[in-house]
Amino acid sequence: MKISLMHGAGGEVMGEVIDLFLKISNTNAGGIGLESLDDGAVIPIGNKQLVFTTDSHVVRPLFFPGGDIGRISVCGTINDVAMMGGKPIALSCGLILEEGFEFDDLSRIIDSMDKALSEENVSLVTGDTKVLEKGALDKIAINTAGIGVADTIIRDNGLMPGDNIIVSGTLGDHGFAVLASREEFDFADQIISDVAPLSGMVQSVLKIGKINAMKDPTRGGFASAINEMAKKSGVMVRIHEEEVPIRSSVRAASQLLGIDPLEVANEGKVVMGVPAEDTEAVLKALRSHRYGRDAAIIGTVTKGKGVIMETTAGGERFIETPIGDPVPRVC
Amino acid sequence: MKISLMHGAGGEVMGEVIDLFLKISNTNAGGIGLESLDDGAVIPIGNKQLVFTTDSHVVRPLFFPGGDIGRISVCGTINDVAMMGGKPIALSCGLILEEGFEFDDLSRIIDSMDKALSEENVSLVTGDTKVLEKGALDKIAINTAGIGVADTIIRDNGLMPGDNIIVSGTLGDHGFAVLASREEFDFADQIISDVAPLSGMVQSVLKIGKINAMKDPTRGGFASAINEMAKKSGVMVRIHEEEVPIRSSVRAASQLLGIDPLEVANEGKVVMGVPAEDTEAVLKALRSHRYGRDAAIIGTVTKGKGVIMETTAGGERFIETPIGDPVPRVC
Ligand SMILES: Nc1ncnc2c1ncn2[C@@H]1O[C@H](COP(=O)(O)OP(=O)(O)OP(=O)(O)O)[C@@H](O)[C@H]1O
Ligand SMILES: Nc1ncnc2c1ncn2[C@@H]1O[C@H](COP(=O)(O)OP(=O)(O)OP(=O)(O)O)[C@@H](O)[C@H]1O
Ligand SMILES: [Mg+2]
Ligand SMILES: [Mg+2]
Ligand SMILES: [Mg+2]
Ligand SMILES: [Mg+2]
Ligand SMILES: [Mg+2]
Ligand SMILES: [Mg+2]
Repeated sequence: MKISLMHGAGGEVMGEVIDLFLKISNTNAGGIGLESLDDGAVIPIGNKQLVFTTDSHVVRPLFFPGGDIGRISVCGTINDVAMMGGKPIALSCGLILEEGFEFDDLSRIIDSMDKALSEENVSLVTGDTKVLEKGALDKIAINTAGIGVADTIIRDNGLMPGDNIIVSGTLGDHGFAVLASREEFDFADQIISDVAPLSGMVQSVLKIGKINAMKDPTRGGFASAINEMAKKSGVMVRIHEEEVPIRSSVRAASQLLGIDPLEVANEGKVVMGVPAEDTEAVLKALRSHRYGRDAAIIGTVTKGKGVIMETTAGGERFIETPIGDPVPRVC
Repeated sequence: MKISLMHGAGGEVMGEVIDLFLKISNTNAGGIGLESLDDGAVIPIGNKQLVFTTDSHVVRPLFFPGGDIGRISVCGTINDVAMMGGKPIALSCGLILEEGFEFDDLSRIIDSMDKALSEENVSLVTGDTKVLEKGALDKIAINTAGIGVADTIIRDNGLMPGDNIIVSGTLGDHGFAVLASREEFDFADQIISDVAPLSGMVQSVLKIGKINAMKDPTRGGFASAINEMAKKSGVMVRIHEEEVPIRSSVRAASQLLGIDPLEVANEGKVVMGVPAEDTEAVLKALRSHRYGRDAAIIGTVTKGKGVIMETTAGGERFIETPIGDPVPRVC
C-alpha cells in the first residue's frame, strides 16, 4: 500500500497512519497520551499538568489573505495547547527549507511568527534548521511543538446531554481564504483567513464558566471536530443551521465551488460544549474578545449518537465526518 | 539572498537563519532560552526544570547500516534532552510524507522509533501527519520534539581549565556510515552508524561524577562541538590526536574521500568536560555502558582560546569549526 493525500487529510484514512503509532509500547507518560487522540497530551510534571502538542505546517500559498505559514505554525500549536485547557508557555520550531528559498520571505515568515507569539506572550525557545537540495521540498515546512500548563484540563470527549454547542465565530474562513487566494477567484469581498491564537480568549472564558469539551475545528472543519467530540463523548449533537455563523463571501464561494464550509479548516475558532447554566456567561466572555465577536450558540447535546443538522428549510440531515479534506495543504 | 545548503549544515552560515529567530521578542521562558544556542531550552515548571528541544530529520538513505530515519529521529531528540542534563520523558512526532510513500516502509520506521523509545523508557505522546503531493517532498521528514526533567542542568559553556575532555566512543561513525551506504563503497568492513539514545548512560554518569559541560557532536562533528564548547566557555582545549578513538574502517574511508572524521556527524556520542578528580569515575561509568565502551580521555582544558590538536607526528594545528557539513542530509 502507498500513502495517499487522504492519509494527511485529518479524517478517517489518517487513522491508518495513526494506528501504526498507537502500536508503540509507551504512548502515555502518566496523564493523557496518544491513545486519546485529543488535541495534545498531558503529562504530570511535579505538581503541574504539562500540555504538550505539535503540528507541522505546509500551507500553500505561503502568504494568503489574513496570514501566512509563520502565523499559522504558531497559532496551530498555541491553539492545540489551549484546547486542552493549557496556558501556552513556549514553542519549538523545526524549520525545513528548500535550497534557493528567498531569505527575505523567511524573514517575513519569522516576523509573523513573532507577532503571533507576542499576542499571547509565548516564547520561542528552541529549534532546528535543515536545508534540502533544490527539488527535494516544495519551499518550506515548519513544525512547531508547544508546552503549556493546565489548571483545568479540558478534553474533547466531555460533552454532556444538556450542553449547548458554542462556536467562537464564523466557520470556513481559513479554508476558503486559502482556496480563493490559490485559484484567484473574484469574490465580491475578499475572504480573509481567521488564523489567530486563541489561548488568551480561552483562558478568560475558563475563569468565568465551565467548558465540558473543546476542540479547534482545523483539518476536516467543524464537521470533523463535532463528530469526533460527539463520538468520543457518547452523545448526539443537534445543530441548528440558521444559527451557524458563515460569512456571505464564504457562503458564495461554497456554492460556487460545491464545497461545504463546515468541512474546511478553521485556524482561529473553537467549538465548545458548555453546560446550560454557564452558556450566557461563556458567550458574553467570548464576544468581548476580538477573536470571539461572532460567537454563537449553534446547537445542543442530547442522549444518542451522531450529529444532526436541523436545516433552515425545516428538515434534518446528518453531518458526517468528511473522508478527506477538500482543500489539500490547507495548513 | 537565497538559502543555500550551508544554511542547514549546522555551522556558521546557519547562524544567519538563527539570527532571524534571535530577533523574536520572547526567546526565553524563564530558564535557558534560544539565545544560549545550547542543545535545548530549560523552562521552570513548578519546582521542576523542564528541558525542551527539537530536531527534524531528513537523512538519506532512509535505512542505513546501524539505523534508519526512525531511530535517528528518536535518538537525536533524546540526546539533546540528555545533553542538558535532562531525563527524557516524552516525545512528539511531526511526520511529513510524500504521496506514494510505501506504507510498509513507514511501518518499519515507526517500529524502529518504538525500539529506540523503549530502550530509554520514553513515551511518544502526541503527533501530527501531513502528506504532500508527489514531487513536493523527497519521501519523508520526521520532526520530534522532546521534554524531560533535569535535576542538574548541564550546559555546553561550562568547561573549566583543568577539566579533561572525554568522548564516549569512536568518532565519525554515523557520517561515514551514511556516506558509505550512499556511495556503495567497498570498505574492508562495513561502517555502522553509532545512532543510539544516550540518556540512560548520561544519567548514570551524573550519579557518580561531575560534568562541567556536555554536547552531542552531531552536524559539524566533534570539530564543531568542541569549538562551540571552548568558545562559549572562554577556554582553550588541547586534543591529543593519538588518544582520539577512530575506527580503522572510518580512518580508511576518511583517507579515501579526503573527509576529516572529526567534521562529520555522530549520533550516539557525547563530548564532556570533566573535572580532573572525577575523570576516572566518569570514564569507568561510561565504559561500563554499552554505548560508552570506547570512551576515552582525549584532551584537556586550559586558559586561553581555540582548539589545538597535538598531532601524532608531534606537531600542533588548530581544529577549526567546519564551514559546512561534508555530508549533506546526514541526519
Ligand atoms: N505522526 C503522528 N504520530 C503520533 N500521533 C499522531 C501523528 N499524527 C497524528 N497523531 C495524533 O492523532 C490525533 C489527530 O491528529 P491531528 O493532527 O488531526 O490533530 P490536530 O492537531 O488537533 O488537528 P490539525 O493537525 O488539523 O490541527 C492527535 O491526537 C495526534 O496527536
Ligand atoms: N529554526 C530554528 N528556530 C529556533 N532556533 C533554532 C532554529 N534552528 C536552530 N536553532 C537553535 O540553534 C542552536 C543550534 O541548533 P542545532 O540544530 O545545530 O543544534 P543541535 O540540535 O544540538 O544539533 P543537530 O541539529 O545537528 O543535532 C540550537 O540552540 C537551536 O535551538
Ligand atoms: Mg486540534
Ligand atoms: Mg492542530
Ligand atoms: Mg538541531
Ligand atoms: Mg545537540
Ligand atoms: Mg540535535
Ligand atoms: Mg495536528
